[in-house]
Amino acid sequence: MSKTYYDDSLALHTDLYQINMTESYWNDGMHTRKAVFDLYFRKLPFHNGYGVFAGLERIIEYVKNFTFSQSDLDYLKEVVGYDEPFLEYLSTLRFTGNIRCMREGELVFGNEPIIRVEAPLAEAQIIETALLNIVNYQTLIATKASRIKQVVGEQTVMEFGTRRAHELDAAIWGTRAAYVGGLEATSNVRAGKIFGIPVSGTHAHSMVQAYRDEYEAFHAYARRHKNCVFLVDTYDTLKSGVPTAIKVAKELGDRINFVGIRLDSGDLAYLSKKARKMLDAAGFQDTKIIASNDLDEQTIMNLKSQGCKIDVWGIGTKLITAYDQAALGAVYKLVSIEDEHGTMVDTIKISGNPEKVTTPGLKRPYRIINTVNGKAEGDYIALEDEDPKREERIKMFHPVHTYISKFITDFEAKELHHDIFVNGELVYQKPTLQEIQRYAKVSLEVLWEEYTRSLNPEEYPVDLSQKCWDNKMKNIEIMKEKVAKGVH
Amino acid sequence: MSKTYYDDSLALHTDLYQINMTESYWNDGMHTRKAVFDLYFRKLPFHNGYGVFAGLERIIEYVKNFTFSQSDLDYLKEVVGYDEPFLEYLSTLRFTGNIRCMREGELVFGNEPIIRVEAPLAEAQIIETALLNIVNYQTLIATKASRIKQVVGEQTVMEFGTRRAHELDAAIWGTRAAYVGGLEATSNVRAGKIFGIPVSGTHAHSMVQAYRDEYEAFHAYARRHKNCVFLVDTYDTLKSGVPTAIKVAKELGDRINFVGIRLDSGDLAYLSKKARKMLDAAGFQDTKIIASNDLDEQTIMNLKSQGCKIDVWGIGTKLITAYDQAALGAVYKLVSIEDEHGTMVDTIKISGNPEKVTTPGLKRPYRIINTVNGKAEGDYIALEDEDPKREERIKMFHPVHTYISKFITDFEAKELHHDIFVNGELVYQKPTLQEIQRYAKVSLEVLWEEYTRSLNPEEYPVDLSQKCWDNKMKNIEIMKEKVAKGVH
Repeated sequence: MSKTYYDDSLALHTDLYQINMTESYWNDGMHTRKAVFDLYFRKLPFHNGYGVFAGLERIIEYVKNFTFSQSDLDYLKEVVGYDEPFLEYLSTLRFTGNIRCMREGELVFGNEPIIRVEAPLAEAQIIETALLNIVNYQTLIATKASRIKQVVGEQTVMEFGTRRAHELDAAIWGTRAAYVGGLEATSNVRAGKIFGIPVSGTHAHSMVQAYRDEYEAFHAYARRHKNCVFLVDTYDTLKSGVPTAIKVAKELGDRINFVGIRLDSGDLAYLSKKARKMLDAAGFQDTKIIASNDLDEQTIMNLKSQGCKIDVWGIGTKLITAYDQAALGAVYKLVSIEDEHGTMVDTIKISGNPEKVTTPGLKRPYRIINTVNGKAEGDYIALEDEDPKREERIKMFHPVHTYISKFITDFEAKELHHDIFVNGELVYQKPTLQEIQRYAKVSLEVLWEEYTRSLNPEEYPVDLSQKCWDNKMKNIEIMKEKVAKGVH
Repeated sequence: MSKTYYDDSLALHTDLYQINMTESYWNDGMHTRKAVFDLYFRKLPFHNGYGVFAGLERIIEYVKNFTFSQSDLDYLKEVVGYDEPFLEYLSTLRFTGNIRCMREGELVFGNEPIIRVEAPLAEAQIIETALLNIVNYQTLIATKASRIKQVVGEQTVMEFGTRRAHELDAAIWGTRAAYVGGLEATSNVRAGKIFGIPVSGTHAHSMVQAYRDEYEAFHAYARRHKNCVFLVDTYDTLKSGVPTAIKVAKELGDRINFVGIRLDSGDLAYLSKKARKMLDAAGFQDTKIIASNDLDEQTIMNLKSQGCKIDVWGIGTKLITAYDQAALGAVYKLVSIEDEHGTMVDTIKISGNPEKVTTPGLKRPYRIINTVNGKAEGDYIALEDEDPKREERIKMFHPVHTYISKFITDFEAKELHHDIFVNGELVYQKPTLQEIQRYAKVSLEVLWEEYTRSLNPEEYPVDLSQKCWDNKMKNIEIMKEKVAKGVH
């Protein structure tokens, strides 16, 4: 059996090939050349019309603390077999470059850089895997949560998914991402503690079983908790659960607030309508009906269309695992590198699949807001030396179907990237989580409704500037010629 | 904004309702009553014929270290608002009970207890969420990995999914679970370090781009790395990648081992067949073809049926996220509790959905192995005071369609649970990860093939003993009568 080591560092939370490549770069003196990588996804998840970016907070912590521990180095030496000089180099490695990134809660679309890393090649290379691991999951969940919130509207939605999350980190960071996307509360107490998210929860079936009687259990809960939500489906919702809850609430009167009942199984449309009538008839018009049980935006929309009487939604599995599409495919691509003379040279990856061709060069993404109606015309990706903020008129055209184009004159070009690290120094002032949630909500207001509906939304334009497009075409031509020449 | 606290403990990695219930139990002096919970799932994932249990290692660490930190208590007081006497009680809480559990790598089926927790009610209640969080994910991934390994056979399969995993823990523990299920290696270096799993990886597209020439990049890799696998699809697999790899390998001759080429896009059946011919024609018959790109057991089966020439498989997204079914639905149900006289009383949860009715009582699961042919007849769940090992003949009957029954005489009843914690003390001698993997592999040999095929397997029998079944029926009757009486 291979020797094992204590888990005291995240520096090795990367793919082995990143370290192997770093070894070659270092061997050839290439490791310090400045490289630029873009992190982006190609397709929005869930056929949604927009994404909600999350992950920056975790990335900042990871990059700031990036360093190989002694046990990392011991492992690389004793098990993987790297030699001393290379390990000595690794032991000195810190992140010394620049990171520009969207703020969390920003709306994000396919094929636009969420993060741009400019750093010595070795540093930029090694952090790739962790950055993707973080962004892919958190952005997926923030987007799913936003979809759910769109359907629910002003009603309260809570995150209940810890038991089905993919291990502990997903429960914690997924809850945070769900909050970014618009959810109001979580059942996960640790997430409440470390992020300040409101926590929510009352009792489970096991409490009813432990007291071996629903009446006894509700009474016991009410003895200790002023605000009562009773779970009514342990034995039979309409015959036992709801009447028992009403009975206990009547008996205790002002001694408790009969906040709600929770339905966790059965036909939620039917049961909620019946339960609502029973509660109303008993004088509990303000008592809420909370529902859970494998819900997501589609089941909620269905239940609402059937006139369900649900006031509060608890969302578990379908959100925390992004069940209908459990992965976002963000990638991290080299777009420019310093050559042997110190000049930055654009790079491209071409592919038989046109969508997989990368866009070369240092770029900045902008959101083009029409100043007449306050709505977004689309996002606009320009080269570093362009400044659409100073232009009077910009041409936006579809990056594939280039004949689809328009000129915009009355616009504000809002830059989407912010400086996070400059020369390895953290310069970003993090907003609070509440501010991030608010920002995501407000950002949605600049989108026309055709982009925010959950089914078959229109495709929001993400266009390249003319200069950026020309540069891409030039790079494709150069590479095609090179491949055509063949291997001799 | 709510105050936030440093993340220094996993005790709050639970749902708020667990703590609210604990508060009621403590308020009523119920918290020390002995309770028995079963952890099990109802349905196997992926329509598979068996599951592979993983998660025990993480659970042991969690339970052993269970204690509320000062910052946990501060948060519960300052934000959630629990009072001092209850917090004082929580501060003393440790796990003092018994845990019996299957060993990791054990084959597991629907409706049989994987874990049985016998502990003071409060302790057993609070650990529920974390146990489910861990078992649900790790068992899902071990099962998915085993499905993949079944299809791949003796060829090597590697885990490449970190960038798409649901945050960091899923990458690490998912890799370990994949190893339990039969995968041979991982790209995640941290998983290699902490678990001793072999790590694997060569270079990425970005290295080809960084050298701005495939030939230069392969040469650079080969200068530093004796064993070379070249990634051949950065520009054009057959026109550029494969011929360049061959050219470099020929030039360098014995100075490198030309271990393989890696295909990461395009039609893998077609490309692998073409590449195999090119390699063979150049004299590299031993050079392997490694393939990746959204693979899982279904695509692998298809590629194999088309006669692909792939030797080694790299599996990413589809495994680490269990993409085709991203959640396992294990639950944790109270099956017995001490009453006010100190007597253990069985408990049941009934439901409109017959599959959701729980099985009351302290139980033990056995695997009934036919001693004539060495194959499993099914699993058998007996009450604590039964001992099928001493019986000469057992009757196995379907727990729903009870007329389906058989008598077994020549059998060995293999007990599936092991003592993990006894009175809070860890008594279990953990096997090594390599032993766990081997155990999972050997365990599969006792299953008839009809249970192990990946499409439409037969349903493996998980039967209740007559006594266990009678006890369940009795409890259902009691509860039905109680509900029928109604609420007055």
